[in-house]
Amino acid sequence: MSDVTALADRAREAANALAATSTDQRNRALLAMSHGLVARQEEILAANARDIEAARAKNTAAPLLDRLELTPVRVKSISEALRSLALLPDPIGEVMSGSRLANGIWLQQIRVPMGVVAMIYEARPNVTADAAGLCIKTANAVILRGGSLAQESNRALTKVLASAAVGSGMPEGCIQMVESTDHAAAEELMSLHGKIDVLIPRGGAKLIQSVVQNAKVPVIETGVGNCHVYVHAAAIPKMAERIVVNAKCSRPGVCNAAESLLVDAAVYETVLPPILKALEDAGVTVYGDEKTRSLGAIMRIQPASEDDWGTEYLDMKISCKVVSGLDEAIRHINTYGTKHSEAIVTEDYAAALRFLNEVDAAAVYVNASTRFTDGGEFGLGAEIGISTQKLHARGPMGLTALTTTKFIAMGSGQIRE
Amino acid sequence: MSDVTALADRAREAANALAATSTDQRNRALLAMSHGLVARQEEILAANARDIEAARAKNTAAPLLDRLELTPVRVKSISEALRSLALLPDPIGEVMSGSRLANGIWLQQIRVPMGVVAMIYEARPNVTADAAGLCIKTANAVILRGGSLAQESNRALTKVLASAAVGSGMPEGCIQMVESTDHAAAEELMSLHGKIDVLIPRGGAKLIQSVVQNAKVPVIETGVGNCHVYVHAAAIPKMAERIVVNAKCSRPGVCNAAESLLVDAAVYETVLPPILKALEDAGVTVYGDEKTRSLGAIMRIQPASEDDWGTEYLDMKISCKVVSGLDEAIRHINTYGTKHSEAIVTEDYAAALRFLNEVDAAAVYVNASTRFTDGGEFGLGAEIGISTQKLHARGPMGLTALTTTKFIAMGSGQIRE
Repeated sequence: MSDVTALADRAREAANALAATSTDQRNRALLAMSHGLVARQEEILAANARDIEAARAKNTAAPLLDRLELTPVRVKSISEALRSLALLPDPIGEVMSGSRLANGIWLQQIRVPMGVVAMIYEARPNVTADAAGLCIKTANAVILRGGSLAQESNRALTKVLASAAVGSGMPEGCIQMVESTDHAAAEELMSLHGKIDVLIPRGGAKLIQSVVQNAKVPVIETGVGNCHVYVHAAAIPKMAERIVVNAKCSRPGVCNAAESLLVDAAVYETVLPPILKALEDAGVTVYGDEKTRSLGAIMRIQPASEDDWGTEYLDMKISCKVVSGLDEAIRHINTYGTKHSEAIVTEDYAAALRFLNEVDAAAVYVNASTRFTDGGEFGLGAEIGISTQKLHARGPMGLTALTTTKFIAMGSGQIRE
Repeated sequence: MSDVTALADRAREAANALAATSTDQRNRALLAMSHGLVARQEEILAANARDIEAARAKNTAAPLLDRLELTPVRVKSISEALRSLALLPDPIGEVMSGSRLANGIWLQQIRVPMGVVAMIYEARPNVTADAAGLCIKTANAVILRGGSLAQESNRALTKVLASAAVGSGMPEGCIQMVESTDHAAAEELMSLHGKIDVLIPRGGAKLIQSVVQNAKVPVIETGVGNCHVYVHAAAIPKMAERIVVNAKCSRPGVCNAAESLLVDAAVYETVLPPILKALEDAGVTVYGDEKTRSLGAIMRIQPASEDDWGTEYLDMKISCKVVSGLDEAIRHINTYGTKHSEAIVTEDYAAALRFLNEVDAAAVYVNASTRFTDGGEFGLGAEIGISTQKLHARGPMGLTALTTTKFIAMGSGQIRE
């Protein structure tokens, strides 16, 4: 039996034992994990320093190094996130519905853990602790497979978190990591149908696609966002400008940032120039269609190709297209969008209603920035990721995304005719 | 572009248009489909007769022929099922939760259609009509790929159903079938990531496994059931006997039938013989472990191999094992079961509670037959299948399993700090 399969079998044993733990026991484990991170931060920071040194030697880009780096302040913040998790209500055991059937059977549908959750993610050590915490909260065993650049950090974090959890009564094997950084190990993890209940990839489009193409286990796709802001003819121009600039510039590298701007032909000549100017002032490069470029006197606009309509820049870049009206805008978004977050700016009631109904996305906005698509902003308390698929969970995922249900039926000898 | 991809693109167009239809329009379409089946039954029955003739020429087994065959009575019953669907409440548009966020955004999570649903199933023409009806009810476009033996029947049914639906205002392409019966066409359907929102296979273990192994699109696994009845030491013997016989014999070919019997060592010498006798009288072959076989004076018992613990017989056969008690029973079920339906027979309160909590299955029973796991019995109104996975839906799936959610956010110019 391979190491990865053995890991998954241990996780199943742990999951069966976790199903019998109480809310209090799991919350105490989270507090122990939170405490452990701070108490043993020296070994964590030392391991992280080795990762950073190796990454620097490989000429790793600065933003990646930044995401990889741990500091005492960051460890403290990760530790506090685990403490906050302990304070959230427990979704496990919730009776979702129930009734006495005509034959006298007392039927209930209750919320239960998924079982074995696997996470595949990039070189971000904070995800290691987040994922472990979310899984312990929901009584799931977790198998972690982080990016190879963070391997030393992840090993130290997993050791500290698992020993704190086990030390406060959680079963051995509840938090494990895949030791091998080979691609083969990741592929094996994705193939363990029947042993892994859900696999959640977190990272860029390439990682997500690799998982979708290779996985034989159930997957929740997360986080690729080609988000649009559509400025309708009846928009308040100044509001449109503020929303576009916020959606693009407040944090251009995240999935809920706007990547494309659509403007109605009826108003583009007056409404678009100040928006383009504001984007230019913010340092954004615009890739425009012919009509947008005809406004080029305002700023230098790059020509947009067909590819631009489908591109998630994750950068200070935006595509811009003049559309004939609501029909074309909805059609364009449903064709090129990734079904993440989409916004219309309008004061027209009927246009707002049609946009909300007909745009196919996890989150659809009227007169607000796409940047609000976030578990914290939506009041979910904690977030595992943002699902862009329709199965199981859609949009920001809170704790319930790590749960499933079970029918329990209490009878007194009933048989079926 | 291949035929299957073109089909999926037409389905997407239809799905976008379906999202804008009203409950009344869709219910009227269901009534028209129900009417169409009866009004045009001659062409349906003629097509079915051609399938039956071809199947007979291939020496198709009798049970398969029976499932393939349509009669005026069966067409009437399929037609009535569509009429009943029209009378069920519409899940689409339900506001599942909502709140006014601190920043003033009015956030709601609403229930919306999946979009494009694909079904792959065996040669059962009734599934064609069921699936089309369930999808129209929930405003989804559907792509049907039935077993090749039923191809003529499915073509006739699809033609009648689609023309009735389109005739009452549903968009072209809302109900389509894959014309090619090649395996390559099915594989292409499974690979259309981004074009198919969910794929539901319905059929035997081999079909389900082929889909799980090949699909790149989100899948809901259905229906494989290696279900157990566990007779605990504190069971009422007569109740145990009735439940075992009902769970095994009332319909041995379905997924919620029992395939394995577990009996506590403390009572097997007295409790098991009458159960074995009752099974023998019903014509069931028992595959027993050593202790069970030691009771062989009662009846002839076949020796059970390790394989028997994991076998879904779907036949008048059952495996039987004597276990040391609750711990071994739970462990055995969680090891060999398919997480479908599991039952304990006991009058012991603590044993019942532990079984309900620790057995990992879609439906867990105390003192009732596993045969109740069914959308109709559970009061869901309609059933698309029984999910044995944990993602999205678990156990009998009603209309909501064909829906997803969407966050809608109504603002007044909010931007994120």
